[in-house]
Amino acid sequence: MAGNSFGKAFRITTWGESHGRAIGAVVDGCPPGLPLNEQMIQQDLDRRRPGQSELTTARKESDRVEILSGVFEGRTSGTPVCLLILNQGQQSHRYDHLRDVFRPGHAEATYYQKYGIYDHRGGGRASARETAARVAAGAIAKRIIGERGIEVIGYTRRVGAIEAETFDLQAIEGNAVRCPDPFRAQEMAELIQQVRDAGDSIGGLVEVIARGVPAGLGEPVYDKMDADLAKALMSINAIKGVEIGTGFDVAGKRGSENNDPWVFENGRLRTRTNHAGGIVGGITTGEELVVRIAVKPPSTIGIPQKTVDRTGRTVIVTPGDADAKRRHDPCICPRVVPVAEAMVAIVLADHFLRQRGLRGDAFQTEKAS
Amino acid sequence: MAGNSFGKAFRITTWGESHGRAIGAVVDGCPPGLPLNEQMIQQDLDRRRPGQSELTTARKESDRVEILSGVFEGRTSGTPVCLLILNQGQQSHRYDHLRDVFRPGHAEATYYQKYGIYDHRGGGRASARETAARVAAGAIAKRIIGERGIEVIGYTRRVGAIEAETFDLQAIEGNAVRCPDPFRAQEMAELIQQVRDAGDSIGGLVEVIARGVPAGLGEPVYDKMDADLAKALMSINAIKGVEIGTGFDVAGKRGSENNDPWVFENGRLRTRTNHAGGIVGGITTGEELVVRIAVKPPSTIGIPQKTVDRTGRTVIVTPGDADAKRRHDPCICPRVVPVAEAMVAIVLADHFLRQRGLRGDAFQTEKAS
Amino acid sequence: MAGNSFGKAFRITTWGESHGRAIGAVVDGCPPGLPLNEQMIQQDLDRRRPGQSELTTARKESDRVEILSGVFEGRTSGTPVCLLILNQGQQSHRYDHLRDVFRPGHAEATYYQKYGIYDHRGGGRASARETAARVAAGAIAKRIIGERGIEVIGYTRRVGAIEAETFDLQAIEGNAVRCPDPFRAQEMAELIQQVRDAGDSIGGLVEVIARGVPAGLGEPVYDKMDADLAKALMSINAIKGVEIGTGFDVAGKRGSENNDPWVFENGRLRTRTNHAGGIVGGITTGEELVVRIAVKPPSTIGIPQKTVDRTGRTVIVTPGDADAKRRHDPCICPRVVPVAEAMVAIVLADHFLRQRGLRGDAFQTEKAS
Amino acid sequence: MAGNSFGKAFRITTWGESHGRAIGAVVDGCPPGLPLNEQMIQQDLDRRRPGQSELTTARKESDRVEILSGVFEGRTSGTPVCLLILNQGQQSHRYDHLRDVFRPGHAEATYYQKYGIYDHRGGGRASARETAARVAAGAIAKRIIGERGIEVIGYTRRVGAIEAETFDLQAIEGNAVRCPDPFRAQEMAELIQQVRDAGDSIGGLVEVIARGVPAGLGEPVYDKMDADLAKALMSINAIKGVEIGTGFDVAGKRGSENNDPWVFENGRLRTRTNHAGGIVGGITTGEELVVRIAVKPPSTIGIPQKTVDRTGRTVIVTPGDADAKRRHDPCICPRVVPVAEAMVAIVLADHFLRQRGLRGDAFQTEKAS
Repeated sequence: MAGNSFGKAFRITTWGESHGRAIGAVVDGCPPGLPLNEQMIQQDLDRRRPGQSELTTARKESDRVEILSGVFEGRTSGTPVCLLILNQGQQSHRYDHLRDVFRPGHAEATYYQKYGIYDHRGGGRASARETAARVAAGAIAKRIIGERGIEVIGYTRRVGAIEAETFDLQAIEGNAVRCPDPFRAQEMAELIQQVRDAGDSIGGLVEVIARGVPAGLGEPVYDKMDADLAKALMSINAIKGVEIGTGFDVAGKRGSENNDPWVFENGRLRTRTNHAGGIVGGITTGEELVVRIAVKPPSTIGIPQKTVDRTGRTVIVTPGDADAKRRHDPCICPRVVPVAEAMVAIVLADHFLRQRGLRGDAFQTEKAS
Repeated sequence: MAGNSFGKAFRITTWGESHGRAIGAVVDGCPPGLPLNEQMIQQDLDRRRPGQSELTTARKESDRVEILSGVFEGRTSGTPVCLLILNQGQQSHRYDHLRDVFRPGHAEATYYQKYGIYDHRGGGRASARETAARVAAGAIAKRIIGERGIEVIGYTRRVGAIEAETFDLQAIEGNAVRCPDPFRAQEMAELIQQVRDAGDSIGGLVEVIARGVPAGLGEPVYDKMDADLAKALMSINAIKGVEIGTGFDVAGKRGSENNDPWVFENGRLRTRTNHAGGIVGGITTGEELVVRIAVKPPSTIGIPQKTVDRTGRTVIVTPGDADAKRRHDPCICPRVVPVAEAMVAIVLADHFLRQRGLRGDAFQTEKAS
Repeated sequence: MAGNSFGKAFRITTWGESHGRAIGAVVDGCPPGLPLNEQMIQQDLDRRRPGQSELTTARKESDRVEILSGVFEGRTSGTPVCLLILNQGQQSHRYDHLRDVFRPGHAEATYYQKYGIYDHRGGGRASARETAARVAAGAIAKRIIGERGIEVIGYTRRVGAIEAETFDLQAIEGNAVRCPDPFRAQEMAELIQQVRDAGDSIGGLVEVIARGVPAGLGEPVYDKMDADLAKALMSINAIKGVEIGTGFDVAGKRGSENNDPWVFENGRLRTRTNHAGGIVGGITTGEELVVRIAVKPPSTIGIPQKTVDRTGRTVIVTPGDADAKRRHDPCICPRVVPVAEAMVAIVLADHFLRQRGLRGDAFQTEKAS
Repeated sequence: MAGNSFGKAFRITTWGESHGRAIGAVVDGCPPGLPLNEQMIQQDLDRRRPGQSELTTARKESDRVEILSGVFEGRTSGTPVCLLILNQGQQSHRYDHLRDVFRPGHAEATYYQKYGIYDHRGGGRASARETAARVAAGAIAKRIIGERGIEVIGYTRRVGAIEAETFDLQAIEGNAVRCPDPFRAQEMAELIQQVRDAGDSIGGLVEVIARGVPAGLGEPVYDKMDADLAKALMSINAIKGVEIGTGFDVAGKRGSENNDPWVFENGRLRTRTNHAGGIVGGITTGEELVVRIAVKPPSTIGIPQKTVDRTGRTVIVTPGDADAKRRHDPCICPRVVPVAEAMVAIVLADHFLRQRGLRGDAFQTEKAS
């Protein structure tokens, strides 16, 4: 009810505040026998952590994950996996002057109205730091679906008005923006630097695709694959929109151009086009899954902003010094990429494990040819 | 696990196929003492049913709802409310020739791959007929939140390239498109007629707003208000995208223009602008909730389409005669409006009832001024 | 949250009041392809319905079940199965004089304190009539596990001080008490008649066994097989205790006599004794499942009882005439038997479907020999 | 689905193996503003931990709890509370010779059949060590309901054939057996010592009562208060039976003696007797809650036992030396007491928070006088 869990068959529960002792996740429903160690998880965490490049925050957080349970002699045992990431290097005193302030775009005000209490240090539970726990849990999900040949790949598609035009998936990790178009990546990087220099921030689009997804995943009606993806992705901090396949462009389409005709190709049922983004009726078609999310410009900026505090007094929020400016991300897209991948992987793992639970193999009298 | 339920504190479970005996919903968690009768629900159902106007399908479905349980002497009793809508006038024989066909854009193929069996008549469970049960359940949700002064209003914002420019909420039910801009509504209606005459269909955008929403609804992290809205709306047939507030346009924004500063106004905490669409950190701010969904062009069209059947044979799908063309909607936006309203109301009722369960009133030592 | 659903992978939701229009159940998670028709369900319903024998209530309720959804051409389609039982022959006027009365042992008082409103006619939602919906849903569960060779058998083990001493499962349906010991059954029947003639009621014990249960069902920790059975059975009206295997007698046992040693028999892992009742660590061992429940004497009796009404006035509750006495069960055990079987079958089906969802077959590197 | 969580509005998720790095619990749904620190939790943990008295295992486990999240400046913040207990002093090598052995009464065999893998050290996840996490979470639940005047008290009622005859609740913590009858406590202690000296173990009964419970808690039908208590308690290691109020003795009762008549006393609705144990129709009456559980004799004993190992070979299980005998509990009742209290408190807190979520105060037109 309090909403700190996600998933049904593969279920994660996260906990922890930005400046508390630690954050972490409990993963329940991981199948037994899966090879798992900390290094496998650390790889993804390193893609999310602060300080990776010039374009991201200069804060130092090593984000070392520890597996506290659920793994025996290098393999999962079917029991819950608890993942722990100690908080280190938090400089809580930096937030002392913000103790009572409702920062524009930040959640202190809504937490206060909901709970009557909130941890003001570094955003508390509302901090994007919580997404480190998602990435750790998502690394396990990736392993589960990876064993079935499913691969999840995310990238920055757009920053401001600059959009990728070529899609070389090998190029993604080769630039700090995580853009599959190396030329546009360069322009994006320059734009981000300009925005940072102006003390401002900028939004963008992240796209995630999944390959090798079998047909038949997703539950019709409320737990449609696209519905669960929408929830999973919209629950990430800073996300204001989710679209599948053609997405919002369907508003201008005719049925005759948007429909994807079915074909048999090498004995396998496919669609000739994939406007649907790999999902029809809430169930995967076996085509590539394609989902895009709108990423807002980070709320923390260097430009002074007028707002109010708890007592109703008008205050100006502004970072104290030049250094502070560098402690926040001018564009969060590069660091959203691993988080979005994690959430897509979690949804796929969840539906993969749900599907195995509900398919009536023994009863079936006919099969798709 | 099989996904036919939605919500936690206010929970709906729907059932039924397009051409089965009946469809319906069970609503669990409705508070006791709420005045409720069939007429209150019928009003919303009448806004969704086929045959309302020239622009929608000419099929006749009266969609009379019956309350089978949970109401005693005109008030809810706290026990589950079962809502029944008998299926009448279904012409299943019209689907005989489609028995083995995988229609483009339709879900026969994915159901078949998931279950090995499907009801081909009128789309079976994948039919948008299921949304009548949502509208019925949503009418109860509207009553619950209506008692607290929350009002949910939906409308067609765009059809093809034509977008509303004025927003007179009183005008919405005055035109067949359900558009708040009467001039654009006329143009939209003409476009829909043209598309229908061409045997084609067209997409659009539906927008839903909610007024009077108190601050503090929504659970941070996974059950954020926006995340639950995204799931609820993306689970509606034909929806391919969901956005909140500024939505996808955040990609091009700077933080300095997108942030909503907090202000105190008449002793109430508000935001000066509402780019966030009424939600910050997953929790409502008290400002107007604003959400938009992308509605694809209906998959059933009059133009012949090449596809395959179960045996792998290539077939041409085409309505048998001119009359058949009129049995489907060229643009589904006007009928999506009440469904989208229902889902928004269900999410709000659910979070309203969850909030009351978790707020620690007795413990609170300080209150927002 | 409102508690009208049970199960996770195989999930039932029931609704309906004793004297409302109908009662019913929605079964979500039924695997596709299972042969199902109304007659299969009716058989179990007929074992529960009133008026089967001299020993039960003389009320006439035909309890005809209708399948409204989820079955296509004689097989389940993977979509939810809605089961409807219309209420017929209810004589609500018989309850007019009880409108404000809190009957001893009945739930009007607690419903009133919880909800501030209740349906006084025939017990409303608190009536054991709700269990007809469980039996209908349980009939589907029995089919699912029956396909895997699991059989669930219930019987009356004790009435008052008379306990079965022989266990001929073939004899159970041969007597009105549903006792596997035909001699004791006769004594039990006589006792029940005496109790009825005295205007009183009497309690008993019902035992349910399940055969053919595979090892490995049940989730360790909170969703242990025994924990879920305890909840399922304790949720039945009139049940005040649940025990597994040796049950409460373990209080007087030594570990050396209570432990069940493991043995290999014909290549299969078994226990030499079965004090555990087929469950160790919350997981089935493959031995016979054995569970017993304590059934209280029905609260409705012919003897006048002093109690209070809503206004605080002391009143005497008494059936109006001799006929009324016959409208209630002096001992509910015979009719609890099919309900208890249904709940055990539902738990087994649920865990069977959950197990298939979580077992990491593909990862396993070693197998039990 | 994997069953490591319990509760809906107040939800605990536990994780950890007996000889892993740590065990712990995540508590989601704790209301904000509740004073909470580690010492408050430690008190209950100290009542459960090994080595408290001569009668329990001599193992040394300090069981220090750390709060990792969810508490800000001494009060809960509404975010999840993660509780960590590091495992210390585990002597895993003591289990080396048991690596492949299926110990009688223990769960290695069923885990192996379920998962194909298990942690053999100290029982792994099946160890009663998991209950320390329940006790820690339960301490929070006790605080929540304690604020409303609800008190939960457990005690050993019976060991072997010796049963308490006087019930002085002040006496419970004054003896090592936790029995409210000091004379019987002495006899129980002697019996336990004899059993230990014989290398054996013995079962018993634990009773838990709750005082100050308001009327109206519990959801009718499946989430009845008694059904949830039955599940919660049956999920504790070593429990084989649960009964409420009169419990199994109802089998021999008449309705006329078992019914509890309603009375008004000092303006409050009560029952004159409390055979029902404080619950009618699944909803609390406001009378004392009374529940009893059957506790089996611990499976680990000093007497050699014949069993098999994974390869099918017959083996004799026996503790290696005299010291080993002292590392296990001859009677687990005294240490079950705080665990049972914790589970009852968790169920009450859960239903308390659920009730607040569903009661339709605003709609109610009439109130119990």
